[in-house]
Amino acid sequence: MTGISLEELQLATRNHGMPLEALRYDVTPVGLHYLLIHYDIPAVDAGSWALTVGGRLANPLRLTLADLGERPVVELKATMECAGNGRARLDPRPVSQPWLNEAVSTARWRGVSVAALLAEASPLDDAAEVVFTGLDRGVEKELEQQFQRSLPLGDALGGEAVLAYEMNGAPLPPQHGFPLRLVVPGWYGMTNVKWLESIEVTDRAFEGFQQASAYRFRLDEDDEGRPLTRMAPRALMLPPGIPEFFTRARTVRFGDVPLTGRAWSGHAPVAGVEISDDGGETWGEAELGTDEGRWAWRSWTHVWRPAALGEYVLCCRAHDEAGNVQPVAATWNVGGYSNNSVQQIPVTVTE
Amino acid sequence: MTGISLEELQLATRNHGMPLEALRYDVTPVGLHYLLIHYDIPAVDAGSWALTVGGRLANPLRLTLADLGERPVVELKATMECAGNGRARLDPRPVSQPWLNEAVSTARWRGVSVAALLAEASPLDDAAEVVFTGLDRGVEKELEQQFQRSLPLGDALGGEAVLAYEMNGAPLPPQHGFPLRLVVPGWYGMTNVKWLESIEVTDRAFEGFQQASAYRFRLDEDDEGRPLTRMAPRALMLPPGIPEFFTRARTVRFGDVPLTGRAWSGHAPVAGVEISDDGGETWGEAELGTDEGRWAWRSWTHVWRPAALGEYVLCCRAHDEAGNVQPVAATWNVGGYSNNSVQQIPVTVTE
Repeated sequence: MTGISLEELQLATRNHGMPLEALRYDVTPVGLHYLLIHYDIPAVDAGSWALTVGGRLANPLRLTLADLGERPVVELKATMECAGNGRARLDPRPVSQPWLNEAVSTARWRGVSVAALLAEASPLDDAAEVVFTGLDRGVEKELEQQFQRSLPLGDALGGEAVLAYEMNGAPLPPQHGFPLRLVVPGWYGMTNVKWLESIEVTDRAFEGFQQASAYRFRLDEDDEGRPLTRMAPRALMLPPGIPEFFTRARTVRFGDVPLTGRAWSGHAPVAGVEISDDGGETWGEAELGTDEGRWAWRSWTHVWRPAALGEYVLCCRAHDEAGNVQPVAATWNVGGYSNNSVQQIPVTVTE
Repeated sequence: MTGISLEELQLATRNHGMPLEALRYDVTPVGLHYLLIHYDIPAVDAGSWALTVGGRLANPLRLTLADLGERPVVELKATMECAGNGRARLDPRPVSQPWLNEAVSTARWRGVSVAALLAEASPLDDAAEVVFTGLDRGVEKELEQQFQRSLPLGDALGGEAVLAYEMNGAPLPPQHGFPLRLVVPGWYGMTNVKWLESIEVTDRAFEGFQQASAYRFRLDEDDEGRPLTRMAPRALMLPPGIPEFFTRARTVRFGDVPLTGRAWSGHAPVAGVEISDDGGETWGEAELGTDEGRWAWRSWTHVWRPAALGEYVLCCRAHDEAGNVQPVAATWNVGGYSNNSVQQIPVTVTE
């Protein structure tokens, strides 16, 4: 790996992944949930805040937190992963937030159904997309902007998207979008606009920076690419044994080693997880845990019996019911997105 | 800066600083509090957990969470900073967790007084030090170990150290030491052992790795050095204006610019904060906010009036009542500790 630059480090010290031992939690404790903040966390006064729902609607709305609280409550356990997870393992490395494996977590979100709110606002016949605008403001490619993303109207009306005002049973913390954020289960993290200011229904495709320029899977600079949408399947393993502080190299005692982890896919339910102790040459089946809902990661377990003392490379890979499977080698792309190549954990088995 | 290595990046994606816009909060929201975890976050079952208080004591103790809850409650607002804050700004860069400026936060801790608990346990006449052992286990310098640090008995009995079971009004989150941690106000972060398993009173100086080898301020490899203890004075500024996503370069609109930030020192109360807009050539006085207690950072404000459009480098520096002042240039040291050289924020003032 070529050295990480100061700019990348500035992002890495602000944002953070989920330490992989937190794979033990079905629902990630708030401060361990991964975090990617494009600009700054805005200061929002909940008392004066209100959400504007406008555009191609028969019944535009303006909703305070109290107004939202009066509407039917929906709750959702959802796994969320940054589209850039795995970026720093690509070579050459696309420069941006340098994630390794750890930009994924699961939370319980509580709020109002996007589909129900839009139905209440009555989209006009020419409505095509729904643009979500956050209060976070900054500059990208010399363009001053607020963070904005859109959903096709069909996805907004047909899916289980939530306008969430609670996370894990408490009001949203500032860094997760207080007072209101979008959560679109199954989609990569950038979809889930934080610090919502407005929802605008439009009659055409949204061409904002974060939609038309960023978050596209492009094989080279000339490739128009395709937009990132749903999370590709991935399994992660809770690193067994104990770490060396600096290298994070793992040491495991000889004997039966219980391996555990989680797996998810935004495309279809997880169908299985496989385990390898030789870096992906040979594979065995792990046992899937209880299904905790379509949008939450699935736990898996496997008892590993190393044949002898020595060095191993543990791997896990998921496949989903739509036939998607994790690749051993990543497909390089310009933005460094969607690298779901299998995790590799070198371990030393000692007496 | 030479490039950050994979090992440093692995630490930077696990641990995290406080995004500097969170300087706006008097008490840092939990998930924004900086985090440095040496090994892995241990899984602790609060039901079977108990704290052992042993060693050179007339009345050794074994205390469950319920036992601790029956004792008088103490509460403390304390600013905590990693001893390695500023490490990545040293040249050549000592390799470890690569902090820039952001490894500091403030929390409200609630628990039991260390002094009162030790008094209850009655130290014997030869008692000299108090060794705190955490449940976090790993390898450092080829030595398998649990994280351990000691305090001289005088500091443990005479100070305001707390065994905290609550942070910001809720049980400790896993990553901050659930179910019990040490908080020694005014001292650098490594002092504040998390996931406490035992307290051992000894009749001699503790020679464990984290005390005798790590966390010493050494000018070169031959220097025995001095132990890191109390936090050196530092002021930080909430970066004004808006950031560019990748470079974090700041743009500020021309006019009066309200600057705010926080300052602290473990040695003595903050006596003043100065501001510069020319990279530290000339300085003016900031106004200190309300004193929120001896161990909490002090807010400061200053209205900056840039003379013209263009480029500036904003700086702030604190001095304390003991006469300590932040240096403009850092003193290089082997471990990369205690770099409290002044923060520099380049800003562009535009129309």
